[in-house]
Amino acid sequence: MKLDPSKKILIVGLGLLGGSYARALKKKGYTVNAITKDESSVAYALENGLIDHGTTAVDADLIAEADLIVFALYPHVFVEWIKEHGPLIKSGTVLTDVTGVKGCIVYEIQSLLPEGVEFIAAHPMAGREVYGVENSDDSIFDGANYLVVPTEKNTFGAIELCESLGEELGFADVSRLSPERHDEMIAFLSQLTHCIAVSLMCACDDPAIERYTGDSFRDLTRIANINDDMWSELFLSNQKALLEQMDLYRTAFDRLYNCVKSGDREEMRSMMRLSTARRKKFVKKG
Amino acid sequence: MKLDPSKKILIVGLGLLGGSYARALKKKGYTVNAITKDESSVAYALENGLIDHGTTAVDADLIAEADLIVFALYPHVFVEWIKEHGPLIKSGTVLTDVTGVKGCIVYEIQSLLPEGVEFIAAHPMAGREVYGVENSDDSIFDGANYLVVPTEKNTFGAIELCESLGEELGFADVSRLSPERHDEMIAFLSQLTHCIAVSLMCACDDPAIERYTGDSFRDLTRIANINDDMWSELFLSNQKALLEQMDLYRTAFDRLYNCVKSGDREEMRSMMRLSTARRKKFVKKG
Repeated sequence: MKLDPSKKILIVGLGLLGGSYARALKKKGYTVNAITKDESSVAYALENGLIDHGTTAVDADLIAEADLIVFALYPHVFVEWIKEHGPLIKSGTVLTDVTGVKGCIVYEIQSLLPEGVEFIAAHPMAGREVYGVENSDDSIFDGANYLVVPTEKNTFGAIELCESLGEELGFADVSRLSPERHDEMIAFLSQLTHCIAVSLMCACDDPAIERYTGDSFRDLTRIANINDDMWSELFLSNQKALLEQMDLYRTAFDRLYNCVKSGDREEMRSMMRLSTARRKKFVKKG
Repeated sequence: MKLDPSKKILIVGLGLLGGSYARALKKKGYTVNAITKDESSVAYALENGLIDHGTTAVDADLIAEADLIVFALYPHVFVEWIKEHGPLIKSGTVLTDVTGVKGCIVYEIQSLLPEGVEFIAAHPMAGREVYGVENSDDSIFDGANYLVVPTEKNTFGAIELCESLGEELGFADVSRLSPERHDEMIAFLSQLTHCIAVSLMCACDDPAIERYTGDSFRDLTRIANINDDMWSELFLSNQKALLEQMDLYRTAFDRLYNCVKSGDREEMRSMMRLSTARRKKFVKKG
Protein backbone atom coordinates (compact mmCIF):
# COMPACT_ATOMS: atom_id res chain seq x y z
CA MET A 1 0.00 0.00 0.00
CA LYS A 2 1.89 3.03 -1.25
CA LEU A 3 0.86 6.63 -0.82
CA ASP A 4 -0.49 8.28 -3.97
CA PRO A 5 -2.14 11.65 -4.60
CA SER A 6 -5.64 10.15 -4.47
CA LYS A 7 -5.15 9.91 -0.68
CA LYS A 8 -6.41 12.67 1.57
CA ILE A 9 -3.99 13.74 4.27
CA LEU A 10 -4.87 15.50 7.50
CA ILE A 11 -2.15 17.20 9.49
CA VAL A 12 -2.80 17.82 13.17
CA GLY A 13 -0.47 20.55 14.42
CA LEU A 14 0.70 23.09 11.86
CA GLY A 15 4.06 24.09 13.28
CA LEU A 16 7.44 24.00 11.58
CA LEU A 17 7.31 20.28 10.80
CA GLY A 18 3.58 20.00 10.14
CA GLY A 19 3.83 23.00 7.82
CA SER A 20 6.84 21.53 6.02
CA TYR A 21 4.94 18.26 5.49
CA ALA A 22 2.00 20.23 4.09
CA ARG A 23 4.28 22.20 1.76
CA ALA A 24 5.96 19.07 0.39
CA LEU A 25 2.73 17.10 -0.04
CA LYS A 26 0.79 19.91 -1.73
CA LYS A 27 3.63 20.20 -4.28
CA LYS A 28 3.11 16.51 -5.05
CA GLY A 29 -0.60 17.06 -5.69
CA TYR A 30 -2.10 15.67 -2.48
CA THR A 31 -5.22 16.99 -0.80
CA VAL A 32 -3.93 18.32 2.51
CA ASN A 33 -6.15 19.48 5.34
CA ALA A 34 -5.13 20.69 8.77
CA ILE A 35 -6.34 21.04 12.32
CA THR A 36 -4.23 23.28 14.52
CA LYS A 37 -4.65 25.43 17.61
CA ASP A 38 -3.97 28.93 16.25
CA GLU A 39 -6.17 30.75 13.80
CA SER A 40 -3.12 32.61 12.48
CA SER A 41 -1.46 29.34 11.43
CA VAL A 42 -4.56 28.31 9.48
CA ALA A 43 -4.70 31.72 7.79
CA TYR A 44 -1.02 31.61 6.84
CA ALA A 45 -1.27 28.05 5.48
CA LEU A 46 -4.38 28.89 3.40
CA GLU A 47 -2.91 32.12 2.04
CA ASN A 48 0.30 30.39 1.03
CA GLY A 49 -1.38 27.36 -0.52
CA LEU A 50 0.00 24.86 1.99
CA ILE A 51 -3.41 23.32 2.70
CA ASP A 52 -6.82 22.89 1.10
CA HIS A 53 -8.86 23.29 4.27
CA GLY A 54 -7.92 24.17 7.80
CA THR A 55 -9.61 24.77 11.12
CA THR A 56 -8.85 25.31 14.77
CA ALA A 57 -11.86 23.15 15.72
CA VAL A 58 -11.51 19.38 15.92
CA ASP A 59 -13.66 18.87 12.82
CA ALA A 60 -15.22 15.39 12.66
CA ASP A 61 -15.69 15.60 8.88
CA LEU A 62 -12.02 16.40 8.18
CA ILE A 63 -11.04 13.52 10.44
CA ALA A 64 -13.51 11.12 8.83
CA GLU A 65 -12.44 11.83 5.27
CA ALA A 66 -8.69 11.48 5.93
CA ASP A 67 -6.85 8.37 4.68
CA LEU A 68 -3.73 9.33 6.58
CA ILE A 69 -3.45 11.58 9.64
CA VAL A 70 -0.05 13.02 10.57
CA PHE A 71 0.31 14.18 14.16
CA ALA A 72 2.92 16.91 14.64
CA LEU A 73 2.37 17.66 18.33
CA TYR A 74 4.33 17.52 21.57
CA PRO A 75 4.29 13.94 22.97
CA HIS A 76 1.91 14.61 25.86
CA VAL A 77 -0.43 16.71 23.66
CA PHE A 78 -0.54 13.87 21.14
CA VAL A 79 -1.58 11.37 23.82
CA GLU A 80 -4.21 13.77 25.21
CA TRP A 81 -5.60 14.40 21.72
CA ILE A 82 -6.03 10.69 21.03
CA LYS A 83 -7.68 10.14 24.40
CA GLU A 84 -10.17 12.90 23.70
CA HIS A 85 -10.78 12.66 19.95
CA GLY A 86 -9.63 9.14 19.01
CA PRO A 87 -13.22 7.83 18.80
CA LEU A 88 -13.85 10.23 15.85
CA ILE A 89 -11.33 8.38 13.67
CA LYS A 90 -12.96 5.94 11.26
CA SER A 91 -11.79 2.37 10.75
CA GLY A 92 -9.21 2.00 7.98
CA THR A 93 -7.47 5.29 8.72
CA VAL A 94 -3.70 5.18 9.21
CA LEU A 95 -2.07 7.51 11.74
CA THR A 96 1.55 8.54 11.87
CA ASP A 97 3.57 11.17 13.75
CA VAL A 98 6.84 13.12 13.90
CA THR A 99 7.57 12.67 17.61
CA GLY A 100 11.20 12.58 18.70
CA VAL A 101 10.71 9.83 21.32
CA LYS A 102 8.93 6.56 20.75
CA GLY A 103 8.94 3.95 23.53
CA CYS A 104 7.00 6.15 25.93
CA ILE A 105 4.15 6.92 23.51
CA VAL A 106 3.87 4.35 20.70
CA TYR A 107 2.46 1.51 22.80
CA GLU A 108 0.12 3.84 24.68
CA ILE A 109 -1.26 5.41 21.50
CA GLN A 110 -1.74 2.00 19.89
CA SER A 111 -3.66 0.78 22.95
CA LEU A 112 -5.98 3.82 22.89
CA LEU A 113 -7.13 3.61 19.25
CA PRO A 114 -10.50 2.33 18.03
CA GLU A 115 -10.67 -1.01 16.24
CA GLY A 116 -9.36 -0.81 12.65
CA VAL A 117 -7.35 2.39 13.18
CA GLU A 118 -3.61 1.83 12.93
CA PHE A 119 -0.80 4.02 14.25
CA ILE A 120 2.61 3.63 12.64
CA ALA A 121 5.25 5.82 14.30
CA ALA A 122 7.85 7.79 12.34
CA HIS A 123 10.59 10.28 13.07
CA PRO A 124 11.76 12.69 10.36
CA MET A 125 15.38 13.59 11.21
CA ALA A 126 15.03 17.16 10.05
CA GLY A 127 14.34 20.48 11.67
CA ARG A 128 15.33 24.08 12.11
CA GLU A 129 16.07 26.27 15.13
CA VAL A 130 12.99 28.37 14.39
CA TYR A 131 9.35 27.54 14.97
CA GLY A 132 5.93 27.88 13.44
CA VAL A 133 4.32 27.29 10.08
CA GLU A 134 5.69 30.64 8.87
CA ASN A 135 9.17 29.10 8.97
CA SER A 136 8.19 25.82 7.36
CA ASP A 137 10.47 24.70 4.56
CA ASP A 138 10.32 21.36 2.77
CA SER A 139 13.96 21.63 1.65
CA ILE A 140 14.92 20.52 5.19
CA PHE A 141 14.06 16.97 4.04
CA ASP A 142 16.65 16.98 1.23
CA GLY A 143 19.43 14.56 2.03
CA ALA A 144 17.93 13.78 5.44
CA ASN A 145 17.00 10.49 7.13
CA TYR A 146 13.45 9.29 7.79
CA LEU A 147 12.91 6.65 10.47
CA VAL A 148 9.88 4.35 10.50
CA VAL A 149 9.32 2.79 13.93
CA PRO A 150 6.90 -0.17 13.83
CA THR A 151 5.79 -2.41 16.69
CA GLU A 152 4.46 -5.97 16.47
CA LYS A 153 0.96 -4.54 16.14
CA ASN A 154 1.71 -2.88 12.80
CA THR A 155 0.67 -4.36 9.46
CA PHE A 156 2.90 -4.61 6.44
CA GLY A 157 0.53 -2.31 4.54
CA ALA A 158 0.77 0.54 7.05
CA ILE A 159 4.56 0.24 7.29
CA GLU A 160 4.79 0.44 3.50
CA LEU A 161 2.45 3.44 3.46
CA CYS A 162 4.57 5.22 6.04
CA GLU A 163 7.78 4.44 4.18
CA SER A 164 6.31 5.82 0.98
CA LEU A 165 5.35 8.98 2.91
CA GLY A 166 9.04 9.44 3.74
CA GLU A 167 9.88 9.02 0.07
CA GLU A 168 7.15 11.40 -1.09
CA LEU A 169 8.38 14.04 1.38
CA GLY A 170 11.80 13.89 -0.29
CA PHE A 171 13.95 12.19 2.35
CA ALA A 172 17.20 10.69 1.05
CA ASP A 173 17.00 7.56 3.16
CA VAL A 174 14.12 5.71 4.80
CA SER A 175 14.90 3.07 7.40
CA ARG A 176 13.02 0.95 9.87
CA LEU A 177 13.82 0.25 13.51
CA SER A 178 12.10 -0.74 16.76
CA PRO A 179 10.95 1.84 19.34
CA GLU A 180 13.69 0.71 21.76
CA ARG A 181 16.42 0.90 19.14
CA HIS A 182 15.07 4.27 17.98
CA ASP A 183 15.20 5.72 21.48
CA GLU A 184 18.76 4.50 21.99
CA MET A 185 19.89 5.98 18.65
CA ILE A 186 18.10 9.27 19.23
CA ALA A 187 19.50 9.56 22.75
CA PHE A 188 22.97 9.44 21.21
CA LEU A 189 22.50 11.29 17.92
CA SER A 190 20.07 14.00 18.89
CA GLN A 191 19.45 14.38 22.62
CA LEU A 192 23.08 14.01 23.70
CA THR A 193 24.19 16.58 21.11
CA HIS A 194 21.67 19.04 22.52
CA CYS A 195 22.91 18.31 26.06
CA ILE A 196 26.47 19.02 24.93
CA ALA A 197 25.57 22.31 23.24
CA VAL A 198 23.55 23.52 26.24
CA SER A 199 26.31 22.54 28.68
CA LEU A 200 28.92 24.34 26.61
CA MET A 201 26.89 27.56 26.52
CA CYS A 202 26.31 27.34 30.27
CA ALA A 203 30.01 26.72 31.02
CA CYS A 204 31.27 30.23 30.27
CA ASP A 205 29.70 33.54 31.24
CA ASP A 206 32.33 35.76 29.60
CA PRO A 207 30.49 38.09 27.18
CA ALA A 208 33.75 38.81 25.31
CA ILE A 209 33.82 35.36 23.70
CA GLU A 210 31.55 36.59 20.93
CA ARG A 211 34.37 38.61 19.39
CA TYR A 212 36.77 35.68 19.45
CA THR A 213 34.44 32.96 18.22
CA GLY A 214 35.30 30.77 15.24
CA ASP A 215 33.14 28.55 13.06
CA SER A 216 33.73 25.39 15.09
CA PHE A 217 32.10 26.96 18.14
CA ARG A 218 29.26 28.40 16.07
CA ASP A 219 28.52 25.04 14.41
CA LEU A 220 28.71 23.12 17.63
CA THR A 221 26.35 25.46 19.47
CA ARG A 222 23.81 26.08 16.68
CA ILE A 223 21.43 23.78 18.57
CA ALA A 224 22.11 25.54 21.89
CA ASN A 225 19.27 27.81 20.74
CA ILE A 226 16.71 25.37 22.07
CA ASN A 227 12.97 25.20 22.80
CA ASP A 228 13.15 24.44 26.52
CA ASP A 229 9.50 23.40 26.79
CA MET A 230 9.77 20.76 24.06
CA TRP A 231 13.27 19.46 24.75
CA SER A 232 12.87 19.10 28.51
CA GLU A 233 9.82 16.93 27.75
CA LEU A 234 11.78 14.88 25.19
CA PHE A 235 14.73 14.40 27.58
CA LEU A 236 12.55 13.21 30.44
CA SER A 237 10.48 10.99 28.14
CA ASN A 238 13.66 9.15 27.20
CA GLN A 239 15.44 9.41 30.54
CA LYS A 240 16.99 5.94 30.79
CA ALA A 241 18.43 5.81 27.27
CA LEU A 242 19.68 9.40 27.51
CA LEU A 243 21.48 8.80 30.82
CA GLU A 244 23.18 5.73 29.30
CA GLN A 245 24.44 7.71 26.31
CA MET A 246 25.54 10.61 28.54
CA ASP A 247 27.55 8.09 30.57
CA LEU A 248 29.23 6.60 27.47
CA TYR A 249 30.11 10.05 26.17
CA ARG A 250 31.46 11.17 29.54
CA THR A 251 33.70 8.11 29.65
CA ALA A 252 35.20 9.04 26.27
CA PHE A 253 35.57 12.70 27.31
CA ASP A 254 37.33 11.67 30.52
CA ARG A 255 39.68 9.44 28.55
CA LEU A 256 40.69 12.41 26.41
CA TYR A 257 40.95 14.62 29.51
CA ASN A 258 43.39 12.14 31.03
CA CYS A 259 45.48 12.13 27.83
CA VAL A 260 45.79 15.93 27.99
CA LYS A 261 46.58 15.80 31.70
CA SER A 262 49.22 13.09 31.48
CA GLY A 263 50.63 14.32 28.18
CA ASP A 264 49.88 11.00 26.47
CA ARG A 265 50.13 12.28 22.92
CA GLU A 266 49.99 8.86 21.25
CA GLU A 267 46.72 7.88 22.94
CA MET A 268 45.29 11.31 22.10
CA ARG A 269 46.27 10.89 18.46
CA SER A 270 44.73 7.43 18.31
CA MET A 271 41.41 8.87 19.56
CA MET A 272 41.65 11.64 16.95
CA ARG A 273 42.34 9.13 14.17
CA LEU A 274 39.38 6.98 15.24
CA SER A 275 37.21 10.09 15.34
CA THR A 276 38.35 11.17 11.88
CA ALA A 277 37.76 7.73 10.35
CA ARG A 278 34.26 7.50 11.83
CA ARG A 279 33.31 11.07 10.90
CA LYS A 280 34.17 10.52 7.25
CA LYS A 281 31.16 8.19 7.02
CA PHE A 282 28.73 10.97 7.89
CA VAL A 283 28.94 13.10 4.82
CA LYS A 284 25.42 14.18 3.93
CA LYS A 285 23.83 12.63 0.86
CA GLY A 286 21.80 14.40 -1.75
CA MET B 1 51.84 52.10 10.06
CA LYS B 2 49.17 50.52 7.93
CA LEU B 3 49.69 47.81 5.36
CA ASP B 4 49.48 49.00 1.76
CA PRO B 5 50.21 47.31 -1.58
CA SER B 6 53.70 48.84 -1.78
CA LYS B 7 54.70 46.33 0.93
CA LYS B 8 56.24 43.00 -0.01
CA ILE B 9 54.88 40.01 1.85
CA LEU B 10 56.61 36.69 2.33
CA ILE B 11 54.58 33.69 3.43
CA VAL B 12 56.46 30.83 5.07
CA GLY B 13 54.35 27.65 4.85
CA LEU B 14 51.91 27.43 1.94
CA GLY B 15 49.20 25.22 3.40
CA LEU B 16 45.52 25.93 3.68
CA LEU B 17 45.94 29.14 5.69
CA GLY B 18 49.16 30.36 4.05
CA GLY B 19 47.56 29.78 0.66
CA SER B 20 44.38 31.59 1.67
CA TYR B 21 46.44 34.58 2.86
CA ALA B 22 48.30 34.60 -0.47
CA ARG B 23 45.03 34.44 -2.41
CA ALA B 24 43.49 37.35 -0.49
CA LEU B 25 46.60 39.55 -0.63
CA LYS B 26 47.28 39.02 -4.33
CA LYS B 27 43.70 40.11 -5.07
CA LYS B 28 44.47 43.34 -3.21
CA GLY B 29 47.54 43.96 -5.37
CA TYR B 30 50.32 42.98 -2.98
CA THR B 31 53.59 41.38 -4.00
CA VAL B 32 53.42 37.95 -2.37
CA ASN B 33 56.34 35.53 -2.23
CA ALA B 34 56.48 32.15 -0.53
CA ILE B 35 58.87 29.66 1.01
CA THR B 36 57.40 26.23 1.63
CA LYS B 37 58.58 22.65 1.92
CA ASP B 38 56.88 20.99 -1.07
CA GLU B 39 57.69 21.73 -4.69
CA SER B 40 54.11 20.84 -5.64
CA SER B 41 52.73 23.62 -3.42
CA VAL B 42 55.00 26.17 -5.09
CA ALA B 43 53.95 24.92 -8.54
CA TYR B 44 50.25 25.08 -7.66
CA ALA B 45 50.56 28.58 -6.19
CA LEU B 46 52.46 29.90 -9.21
CA GLU B 47 50.09 28.30 -11.73
CA ASN B 48 47.08 29.73 -9.96
CA GLY B 49 48.53 33.20 -9.50
CA LEU B 50 48.59 33.05 -5.70
CA ILE B 51 52.20 34.19 -5.48
CA ASP B 52 54.80 36.12 -7.48
CA HIS B 53 57.79 33.97 -6.53
CA GLY B 54 58.11 30.78 -4.57
CA THR B 55 60.79 28.34 -3.53
CA THR B 56 61.40 25.34 -1.34
CA ALA B 57 64.84 26.69 -0.40
CA VAL B 58 65.21 29.17 2.45
CA ASP B 59 66.08 32.00 0.06
CA ALA B 60 68.02 34.82 1.75
CA ASP B 61 67.00 37.34 -0.94
CA LEU B 62 63.26 36.68 -0.55
CA ILE B 63 63.69 37.04 3.21
CA ALA B 64 65.72 40.22 2.91
CA GLU B 65 63.29 41.98 0.60
CA ALA B 66 60.16 41.20 2.66
CA ASP B 67 58.52 43.97 4.69
CA LEU B 68 56.21 41.52 6.41
CA ILE B 69 56.75 37.79 6.89
CA VAL B 70 53.74 35.60 7.76
CA PHE B 71 54.57 32.23 9.34
CA ALA B 72 51.92 29.58 8.74
CA LEU B 73 53.69 26.61 10.34
CA TYR B 74 53.13 24.18 13.19
CA PRO B 75 54.25 25.78 16.50
CA HIS B 76 57.42 23.67 16.95
CA VAL B 77 58.37 24.03 13.27
CA PHE B 78 57.99 27.81 13.59
CA VAL B 79 60.33 27.91 16.60
CA GLU B 80 62.87 25.66 14.83
CA TRP B 81 62.73 27.81 11.70
CA ILE B 82 63.48 30.99 13.65
CA LYS B 83 66.34 29.32 15.52
CA GLU B 84 67.91 28.22 12.25
CA HIS B 85 67.12 31.07 9.84
CA GLY B 86 66.27 34.03 12.10
CA PRO B 87 69.66 35.69 11.52
CA LEU B 88 68.77 36.09 7.81
CA ILE B 89 65.95 38.50 8.65
CA LYS B 90 66.92 42.13 8.21
CA SER B 91 66.26 44.85 10.77
CA GLY B 92 62.93 46.61 10.25
CA THR B 93 61.07 43.50 9.11
CA VAL B 94 57.83 42.67 10.91
CA LEU B 95 56.91 39.02 11.51
CA THR B 96 53.48 37.63 12.23
CA ASP B 97 51.91 34.17 12.36
CA VAL B 98 48.68 32.18 12.36
CA THR B 99 49.46 29.84 15.25
CA GLY B 100 46.56 28.59 17.37
CA VAL B 101 48.42 28.83 20.70
CA LYS B 102 50.36 31.83 21.92
CA GLY B 103 51.82 31.77 25.44
CA CYS B 104 54.12 28.87 24.70
CA ILE B 105 55.71 30.41 21.60
CA VAL B 106 55.32 34.21 21.49
CA TYR B 107 57.84 34.99 24.23
CA GLU B 108 60.30 32.41 22.93
CA ILE B 109 60.14 33.68 19.34
CA GLN B 110 60.52 37.29 20.49
CA SER B 111 63.61 36.37 22.51
CA LEU B 112 65.22 34.60 19.54
CA LEU B 113 64.96 37.41 16.98
CA PRO B 114 67.78 39.67 15.81
CA GLU B 115 67.82 43.33 16.93
CA GLY B 116 65.26 45.43 15.03
CA VAL B 117 63.10 42.49 13.93
CA GLU B 118 59.67 42.49 15.55
CA PHE B 119 57.25 39.59 15.94
CA ILE B 120 53.59 40.42 16.48
CA ALA B 121 51.44 37.33 17.01
CA ALA B 122 48.03 36.90 15.41
CA HIS B 123 45.39 34.18 15.19
CA PRO B 124 42.92 34.14 12.29
CA MET B 125 39.79 32.36 13.57
CA ALA B 126 39.11 30.68 10.25
CA GLY B 127 39.82 27.32 8.72
CA ARG B 128 38.47 24.30 6.93
CA GLU B 129 38.58 20.55 7.60
CA VAL B 130 40.78 20.04 4.53
CA TYR B 131 44.45 20.79 4.10
CA GLY B 132 46.96 22.11 1.62
CA VAL B 133 47.28 25.12 -0.66
CA GLU B 134 45.03 23.35 -3.22
CA ASN B 135 42.13 23.82 -0.79
CA SER B 136 42.98 27.42 0.09
CA ASP B 137 40.02 29.79 -0.04
CA ASP B 138 40.03 33.41 1.07
CA SER B 139 36.24 33.41 1.54
CA ILE B 140 36.86 31.64 4.88
CA PHE B 141 37.79 35.08 6.26
CA ASP B 142 34.37 36.59 5.46
CA GLY B 143 32.51 37.34 8.67
CA ALA B 144 35.28 35.78 10.76
CA ASN B 145 37.29 37.10 13.73
CA TYR B 146 40.98 38.06 13.64
CA LEU B 147 42.88 38.19 16.92
CA VAL B 148 46.04 40.28 17.38
CA VAL B 149 48.05 39.11 20.38
CA PRO B 150 50.71 41.65 21.44
CA THR B 151 53.16 41.47 24.34
CA GLU B 152 54.85 44.35 26.14
CA LYS B 153 57.70 44.10 23.64
CA ASN B 154 55.51 45.09 20.70
CA THR B 155 55.46 48.60 19.25
CA PHE B 156 52.34 50.52 18.36
CA GLY B 157 53.42 50.53 14.70
CA ALA B 158 53.69 46.75 14.43
CA ILE B 159 50.36 46.22 16.19
CA GLU B 160 48.70 48.64 13.79
CA LEU B 161 50.36 46.90 10.82
CA CYS B 162 49.09 43.53 12.01
CA GLU B 163 45.58 44.86 12.59
CA SER B 164 45.52 46.31 9.08
CA LEU B 165 46.62 42.88 7.76
CA GLY B 166 43.49 41.40 9.34
CA GLU B 167 41.39 44.09 7.66
CA GLU B 168 43.09 43.62 4.29
CA LEU B 169 42.46 39.87 4.49
CA GLY B 170 38.74 40.58 4.83
CA PHE B 171 38.02 39.65 8.44
CA ALA B 172 34.80 41.10 9.87
CA ASP B 173 36.27 41.91 13.26
CA VAL B 174 39.82 42.55 14.47
CA SER B 175 40.49 42.52 18.19
CA ARG B 176 43.48 42.64 20.52
CA LEU B 177 44.21 40.51 23.57
CA SER B 178 47.14 39.25 25.63
CA PRO B 179 48.75 35.83 25.04
CA GLU B 180 47.32 34.55 28.33
CA ARG B 181 43.81 35.78 27.60
CA HIS B 182 44.08 34.39 24.06
CA ASP B 183 45.03 30.94 25.29
CA GLU B 184 42.16 30.90 27.78
CA MET B 185 39.66 31.97 25.11
CA ILE B 186 40.99 29.52 22.55
CA ALA B 187 40.97 26.67 25.05
CA PHE B 188 37.25 27.28 25.47
CA LEU B 189 36.15 28.29 21.98
CA SER B 190 38.30 26.08 19.81
CA GLN B 191 40.21 23.36 21.66
CA LEU B 192 37.34 22.31 23.95
CA THR B 193 34.96 22.10 20.98
CA HIS B 194 37.41 19.77 19.22
CA CYS B 195 37.70 17.66 22.40
CA ILE B 196 33.91 17.37 22.53
CA ALA B 197 33.59 16.34 18.88
CA VAL B 198 36.37 13.75 19.17
CA SER B 199 34.91 12.32 22.40
CA LEU B 200 31.48 12.07 20.85
CA MET B 201 32.78 10.17 17.81
CA CYS B 202 34.76 7.84 20.09
CA ALA B 203 31.75 7.17 22.37
CA CYS B 204 29.75 4.99 19.97
CA ASP B 205 31.03 2.21 17.72
CA ASP B 206 27.68 1.35 16.14
CA PRO B 207 28.09 1.66 12.36
CA ALA B 208 24.30 1.92 11.89
CA ILE B 209 24.16 5.46 13.28
CA GLU B 210 25.02 6.84 9.87
CA ARG B 211 21.54 6.01 8.56
CA TYR B 212 19.82 7.67 11.50
CA THR B 213 21.92 10.81 11.72
CA GLY B 214 20.38 14.29 11.68
CA ASP B 215 21.88 17.70 11.06
CA SER B 216 22.60 18.46 14.70
CA PHE B 217 24.98 15.51 14.94
CA ARG B 218 26.59 16.35 11.60
CA ASP B 219 27.16 19.99 12.59
CA LEU B 220 28.49 19.13 16.00
CA THR B 221 30.98 16.58 14.67
CA ARG B 222 32.16 18.43 11.55
CA ILE B 223 35.41 19.16 13.42
CA ALA B 224 35.75 15.51 14.52
CA ASN B 225 37.54 15.14 11.20
CA ILE B 226 40.78 16.38 12.75
CA ASN B 227 44.48 16.56 11.92
CA ASP B 228 45.82 14.52 14.85
CA ASP B 229 49.41 15.66 14.35
CA MET B 230 48.58 19.35 14.57
CA TRP B 231 45.85 19.25 17.19
CA SER B 232 47.68 16.98 19.63
CA GLU B 233 50.51 19.53 19.51
CA LEU B 234 48.09 22.43 20.04
CA PHE B 235 46.35 20.68 22.97
CA LEU B 236 49.61 19.90 24.77
CA SER B 237 51.00 23.38 24.07
CA ASN B 238 48.03 24.82 25.94
CA GLN B 239 47.61 22.07 28.51
CA LYS B 240 46.84 24.10 31.61
CA ALA B 241 44.23 26.40 30.04
CA LEU B 242 42.61 23.50 28.21
CA LEU B 243 42.28 21.38 31.37
CA GLU B 244 40.65 24.33 33.15
CA GLN B 245 38.08 24.77 30.40
CA MET B 246 37.44 21.01 30.21
CA ASP B 247 36.75 21.09 33.96
CA LEU B 248 34.30 24.00 33.66
CA TYR B 249 32.46 22.32 30.82
CA ARG B 250 32.38 19.01 32.62
CA THR B 251 30.79 20.73 35.65
CA ALA B 252 28.01 22.16 33.47
CA PHE B 253 27.48 18.79 31.74
CA ASP B 254 27.23 17.04 35.11
CA ARG B 255 24.70 19.61 36.28
CA LEU B 256 22.50 18.81 33.28
CA TYR B 257 23.08 15.07 33.80
CA ASN B 258 21.80 15.40 37.35
CA CYS B 259 18.70 17.27 36.15
CA VAL B 260 17.89 14.42 33.76
CA LYS B 261 18.57 11.83 36.43
CA SER B 262 16.50 13.49 39.16
CA GLY B 263 13.78 14.66 36.76
CA ASP B 264 14.34 18.31 37.71
CA ARG B 265 12.59 19.80 34.71
CA GLU B 266 12.62 23.41 35.97
CA GLU B 267 16.40 23.45 36.47
CA MET B 268 16.86 21.81 33.06
CA ARG B 269 14.67 24.46 31.45
CA SER B 270 16.57 27.26 33.15
CA MET B 271 19.84 25.91 31.71
CA MET B 272 18.22 25.71 28.27
CA ARG B 273 16.94 29.28 28.51
CA LEU B 274 20.38 30.54 29.54
CA SER B 275 21.91 28.61 26.66
CA THR B 276 19.42 30.04 24.18
CA ALA B 277 19.92 33.61 25.37
CA ARG B 278 23.72 33.32 25.14
CA ARG B 279 23.68 31.58 21.76
CA LYS B 280 21.61 34.34 20.18
CA LYS B 281 24.63 36.64 20.52
CA PHE B 282 26.75 34.44 18.23
CA VAL B 283 25.06 35.01 14.92
CA LYS B 284 27.79 35.39 12.32
CA LYS B 285 28.35 38.83 10.86
CA GLY B 286 28.99 39.62 7.27
